[in-house]
Amino acid sequence: MNKERLSTFIDAMIAIIMTILVLELEKPAEINFWGFWELRNHYFAYALSFFWLGAMWVNLHNNWYHIKRINRYIIWAALLMLFSSSLFPYATSIVSENFNNGSAQVFYGLIVLMVTASNQFMYWLIGKENEKDTVTSTTLTSRNKWAKYDILIKILGILLSMTIFPSAMIYAVLFTLVVFVIPNQLKKP
Amino acid sequence: MNKERLSTFIDAMIAIIMTILVLELEKPAEINFWGFWELRNHYFAYALSFFWLGAMWVNLHNNWYHIKRINRYIIWAALLMLFSSSLFPYATSIVSENFNNGSAQVFYGLIVLMVTASNQFMYWLIGKENEKDTVTSTTLTSRNKWAKYDILIKILGILLSMTIFPSAMIYAVLFTLVVFVIPNQLKKP
Amino acid sequence: MNKERLSTFIDAMIAIIMTILVLELEKPAEINFWGFWELRNHYFAYALSFFWLGAMWVNLHNNWYHIKRINRYIIWAALLMLFSSSLFPYATSIVSENFNNGSAQVFYGLIVLMVTASNQFMYWLIGKENEKDTVTSTTLTSRNKWAKYDILIKILGILLSMTIFPSAMIYAVLFTLVVFVIPNQLKKP
Amino acid sequence: MNKERLSTFIDAMIAIIMTILVLELEKPAEINFWGFWELRNHYFAYALSFFWLGAMWVNLHNNWYHIKRINRYIIWAALLMLFSSSLFPYATSIVSENFNNGSAQVFYGLIVLMVTASNQFMYWLIGKENEKDTVTSTTLTSRNKWAKYDILIKILGILLSMTIFPSAMIYAVLFTLVVFVIPNQLKKP
Repeated sequence: MNKERLSTFIDAMIAIIMTILVLELEKPAEINFWGFWELRNHYFAYALSFFWLGAMWVNLHNNWYHIKRINRYIIWAALLMLFSSSLFPYATSIVSENFNNGSAQVFYGLIVLMVTASNQFMYWLIGKENEKDTVTSTTLTSRNKWAKYDILIKILGILLSMTIFPSAMIYAVLFTLVVFVIPNQLKKP
Repeated sequence: MNKERLSTFIDAMIAIIMTILVLELEKPAEINFWGFWELRNHYFAYALSFFWLGAMWVNLHNNWYHIKRINRYIIWAALLMLFSSSLFPYATSIVSENFNNGSAQVFYGLIVLMVTASNQFMYWLIGKENEKDTVTSTTLTSRNKWAKYDILIKILGILLSMTIFPSAMIYAVLFTLVVFVIPNQLKKP
Repeated sequence: MNKERLSTFIDAMIAIIMTILVLELEKPAEINFWGFWELRNHYFAYALSFFWLGAMWVNLHNNWYHIKRINRYIIWAALLMLFSSSLFPYATSIVSENFNNGSAQVFYGLIVLMVTASNQFMYWLIGKENEKDTVTSTTLTSRNKWAKYDILIKILGILLSMTIFPSAMIYAVLFTLVVFVIPNQLKKP
Repeated sequence: MNKERLSTFIDAMIAIIMTILVLELEKPAEINFWGFWELRNHYFAYALSFFWLGAMWVNLHNNWYHIKRINRYIIWAALLMLFSSSLFPYATSIVSENFNNGSAQVFYGLIVLMVTASNQFMYWLIGKENEKDTVTSTTLTSRNKWAKYDILIKILGILLSMTIFPSAMIYAVLFTLVVFVIPNQLKKP
């Protein structure tokens, strides 16, 4: 298998996951302003999941752009990452309907962490396979600088959700997206 | 990321959105002519959303065809546009089931306007990035000529839906599609 | 827009339509042999819709393979064809649950005819645009030889479904698929 | 039709099937640890179906990579394979909700066997069409070495599910995936 094939498959699955999120989005009980307002946490979780996956997709392409070689382990790491991502519509729906439930938030957080961890694993394998390629190395090193803080904050979110502040997790995900991921994508390379 | 990758991703998401619209389409309570006739507003809203998204996709390709360069801001503008578009199945389902409800119509109108606005924003960024490319400039200038009337009529639709004619919004969208968008696509370039 | 872009978009939508058919497939009330047997008409309608769309996709590619040029009318004819096709999951679900209801069968038949008619319209436009290309002309002429019988049998199916034999329509579709479409695809070019 | 077109279509359908599996995944009745724990068989069936399809996709690419020629019979064998695969979300949902029901397990097993059988048929046709291509022959011969054991174990699973151990089937599928399919993909070519 070549890199193009794998990356087209990844793109297709991420596009489908982002699009079917909407099938789980609850409809207002009454159709007026307050009916929509009631669902504000649903819309927030929907938008967060959508843009989080979108940002992950952008990262994937920035990081894959210069890659020359993939191997069979990278393919399976990608399948692991896609498996974790495929649970996003499920986890988003659960966290939307149980926004102040610590277990729902921890479940959402674990899915996000699984995606992050399998991405890290995949990037590590890619780095090994392409170690002579300096552009890829530089991109991945720059990723690793913020990735550890990203993971730390998500773990902190899980701990808070389990104890004193049930909805902490989703705000932790929002925080990492707005503070690490998006600025890193918009700044000059 | 290159232009091809982004435009393939946009295509995939629009194709999925257009196709899953049908999953929200209500089935007749009784299977006879009157059962289907009862749902005529549902079929109208379904067809309108389908062709509106289809026309948007055709526009995207006419406008993107000559583009040479994209940048990181264009990618995020595209994500914004896809996010707004991803709410189409949701808004279409709500407006179908509450055709004469002003709030449902305004919600549908706001989604349509969000898509239009994020498209305008994306085209503006594309214009800036490709300002030396005269074909792109000409295409985008020709778009801007009718885009302001298009937006005005949609805002008028929202105002009417909020006041004296609840279902005005969806007819405003139909009007802009039939009077501006489709003729512009079918006329000689 | 070039031909490749349009044909990739058509492929994507047909793939999605064929795949989401399953989301409407009813599950057995009791999980034993008779529970599955009860749903035999559902499985028949599911398989027929799947392979009918699959055969349409194969035809599209055989016919599009040599096409050099498309135009803006062909794009809109393709959107019409995709719109009709997008109603397949809906019509299949209705006909499955109301197999011996003439109205359900006629509705299914009308969707099939709409797809066939918009395909014919699209091929006619393609033929005009590519009239100097002899391979395309030959392919399309060979199609027209059986297409009229195909349409006639479907109209006959609708008439029978409206009068003496409610489930005639779906058998007419099966007949045209097995007698015209598949043998034409498998015979030497 | 050329090979690329067919293989892109297959990829798209497999990506969609893998992604819509989640739409059938049941949500916990109560959102706490035990609520999720209750659904452990659902998660197991979900993960197994996901990775089984993923592994099939990887195999497809390893085997198709060197193929030069396809023919009309291969296209229809691919449609048969996609039809069987398209029933995965349906069968997974049934087996998840009736984990200890022999009929549900046999149904799941028959779907898996249908996919395996249509894959074998497709590879046989590919082998015939590309018999002068030694790389393809070698790949397919190496596949045939384990494919017969794979099918035997699945048939054994069905027999056990019909008699003394209702959930045998799904463990047989897990066994073949972990013992034959994945190690074959990860070992040096």
